[in-house]
Amino acid sequence: MISVGEALAKVRERKPLVHNITNFVVMNTTANALLALGASPVMAHAEEELEEMVRIADSVVVNIGTLDKFWINSMIKAAKLAKEYGKPLVLDPVGAGATRLRTKTALEVLKIGATIVKGNFGEISALLGEEGKTRGVDSSTYDPERAKELALAVAEEFSTIVAVTGKVDYVSDGKRVYAVYNGHELLGRVTGTGCIVAALTGAFVAVNDPLTSAVSSLVVFEVAAEKAAEEAKAPGTFHAKLYDWLYLLTPEDVERLKKIEVVKV
Amino acid sequence: MISVGEALAKVRERKPLVHNITNFVVMNTTANALLALGASPVMAHAEEELEEMVRIADSVVVNIGTLDKFWINSMIKAAKLAKEYGKPLVLDPVGAGATRLRTKTALEVLKIGATIVKGNFGEISALLGEEGKTRGVDSSTYDPERAKELALAVAEEFSTIVAVTGKVDYVSDGKRVYAVYNGHELLGRVTGTGCIVAALTGAFVAVNDPLTSAVSSLVVFEVAAEKAAEEAKAPGTFHAKLYDWLYLLTPEDVERLKKIEVVKV
Amino acid sequence: MISVGEALAKVRERKPLVHNITNFVVMNTTANALLALGASPVMAHAEEELEEMVRIADSVVVNIGTLDKFWINSMIKAAKLAKEYGKPLVLDPVGAGATRLRTKTALEVLKIGATIVKGNFGEISALLGEEGKTRGVDSSTYDPERAKELALAVAEEFSTIVAVTGKVDYVSDGKRVYAVYNGHELLGRVTGTGCIVAALTGAFVAVNDPLTSAVSSLVVFEVAAEKAAEEAKAPGTFHAKLYDWLYLLTPEDVERLKKIEVVKV
Repeated sequence: MISVGEALAKVRERKPLVHNITNFVVMNTTANALLALGASPVMAHAEEELEEMVRIADSVVVNIGTLDKFWINSMIKAAKLAKEYGKPLVLDPVGAGATRLRTKTALEVLKIGATIVKGNFGEISALLGEEGKTRGVDSSTYDPERAKELALAVAEEFSTIVAVTGKVDYVSDGKRVYAVYNGHELLGRVTGTGCIVAALTGAFVAVNDPLTSAVSSLVVFEVAAEKAAEEAKAPGTFHAKLYDWLYLLTPEDVERLKKIEVVKV
Repeated sequence: MISVGEALAKVRERKPLVHNITNFVVMNTTANALLALGASPVMAHAEEELEEMVRIADSVVVNIGTLDKFWINSMIKAAKLAKEYGKPLVLDPVGAGATRLRTKTALEVLKIGATIVKGNFGEISALLGEEGKTRGVDSSTYDPERAKELALAVAEEFSTIVAVTGKVDYVSDGKRVYAVYNGHELLGRVTGTGCIVAALTGAFVAVNDPLTSAVSSLVVFEVAAEKAAEEAKAPGTFHAKLYDWLYLLTPEDVERLKKIEVVKV
Repeated sequence: MISVGEALAKVRERKPLVHNITNFVVMNTTANALLALGASPVMAHAEEELEEMVRIADSVVVNIGTLDKFWINSMIKAAKLAKEYGKPLVLDPVGAGATRLRTKTALEVLKIGATIVKGNFGEISALLGEEGKTRGVDSSTYDPERAKELALAVAEEFSTIVAVTGKVDYVSDGKRVYAVYNGHELLGRVTGTGCIVAALTGAFVAVNDPLTSAVSSLVVFEVAAEKAAEEAKAPGTFHAKLYDWLYLLTPEDVERLKKIEVVKV
């Protein structure tokens, strides 16, 4: 079984530098989450500095939540550089399925090569050509049985690790599927919580194997949410306490509180 | 009299998708406010995806707080698409009157057609050609008598609903004028509180008539501010509690606490 | 000795308009910090409106944290306009030393003329041609003896005031060096805390002399951090309380709590 505690301890010890090319909505949010966890974030999108930044980074996170042609160029270039320099790449295909531009961009990055892809049900469906299940940046539907299949199928199709988020999250390497049962419904009332998972995944995968990283980032963030929800009953204070708990949670806490299992598909 | 409670209940029930083309400062803020209220935000500005996004959205919010030529193109295009597809459009002319670029852009959007315009005294003055009353993004002056007249005059001139914010807010459809007396002075110490009103107006107008929506978004947000200020005496914790109260306020609360009346001009 | 209390009182009384051209990560953060302190922030980067905005502003802050060619043009133009109109300019060379683009852009602005430059050890080292001491946007090293020398040397070289931040901050006008001992380690767990100092410096220097301003912004923010840390033990709630204390601190508080001295180099 995956040791989330060990994975977290490694992040805290090594403080990886995570290079994010992400959306305007969550830049502050994801930087704060990475700092609270114990990693070091940097945001950089200028084509002229991408090569230097990817080289010093320990991992790269591409999040397509607010696109335009300039940013798409940077994302594609960063993905190629990550491949060239052997840096793990996390892709968050925000809004794939809602517009063709988003689906197309996600697939372009994916075809260059992503170590881990994390998205909601609608977004991951879109990667298999099933459009129309994304409403803006939210999934308009969720079916746990299909979510398992999606994780497995997309992982196989693109030779990557896939995390499909939802009431239960499913993570697959194309062979096994892990279910993550942690989480809290208030996460749906704060913007960028999915983007935080992708950013934290960048920190984990800089110093851990990809499957462990995809599972561990979900567990750590969702356990933080459970702890935050014990202290806050509404989204504003809950949001602040998410960062508190990313900082406060110990490896022992997450091992004790993790709810994961390998499931059959 | 307008039932703010009913208007809020409809938002909560229908969870409208609000498409925002807004400024970099408040993207996170407005997305969180919409989620806390019970709506679904999406931010998208790429020309290539605007048509698809406007089509699936229930309303469009254009906020000119950080402009450049690329974003202006997107805003103009989104306004045209909103008109074409019959989606309500809310305009927040942030900083109109401070620079000609902002005044000109606001007027361009307005001439295409806005369902509701919300701005401070200086910004709304600028829409009638009275420049120089905006200091950065704040109004440099406020006169309640003139604010009433402005609301009425701009509403008539552009056949829209106008909300002029200030110590007292005035909302007009070009015939009547409503005064909203709710609010709290700490709102002036948090950035983007005006932008939040515009975003929430987008949620209300997706499922309510425009006049009701303009009044209700002001009332709901300002009652939330009053409740937040009971629990927090300084801007940081007050800010977090604004989202808490957007989530916690019930239709009964806002009906009981609303302070609105029809006023003579 | 510098009176931080008097400097703060002047900011509160005069409420300067601070024009920021800053990075996407911290736009919200810095606007909120300026409002909490008692200043008025505006963010504007369009070339078409820069001249009007610089003219009405009381100071200009340029922060290179997320660059691209469009924003670099705006920063250069704003620096020239600040010089032309005699407005104080604060430069925050975020990430200088991590990529050549950042170092080059910082130097270009600096050569046009900055009233104050504030950066961490790695960033300020890069201004003297010592690359490779910046890891993303953090300094990879810190040496108090060398920090003093750096402050002095860069201030002399570019005829400006320089603040080098770190465990102890050093501020120099090229002749004297002040040490600031305030602060708290949780500041390293919140993104944009350095950027907040630069923004606040913009507020101070609009109404105070440059050396007083560079020292006072550090003291006020770091005393706010000390107070926040008395009430919050983790980054999320600590972050919210930073704004609270920027608002709550009185001139008497900062005078009583400041820890500064003139040091020998």
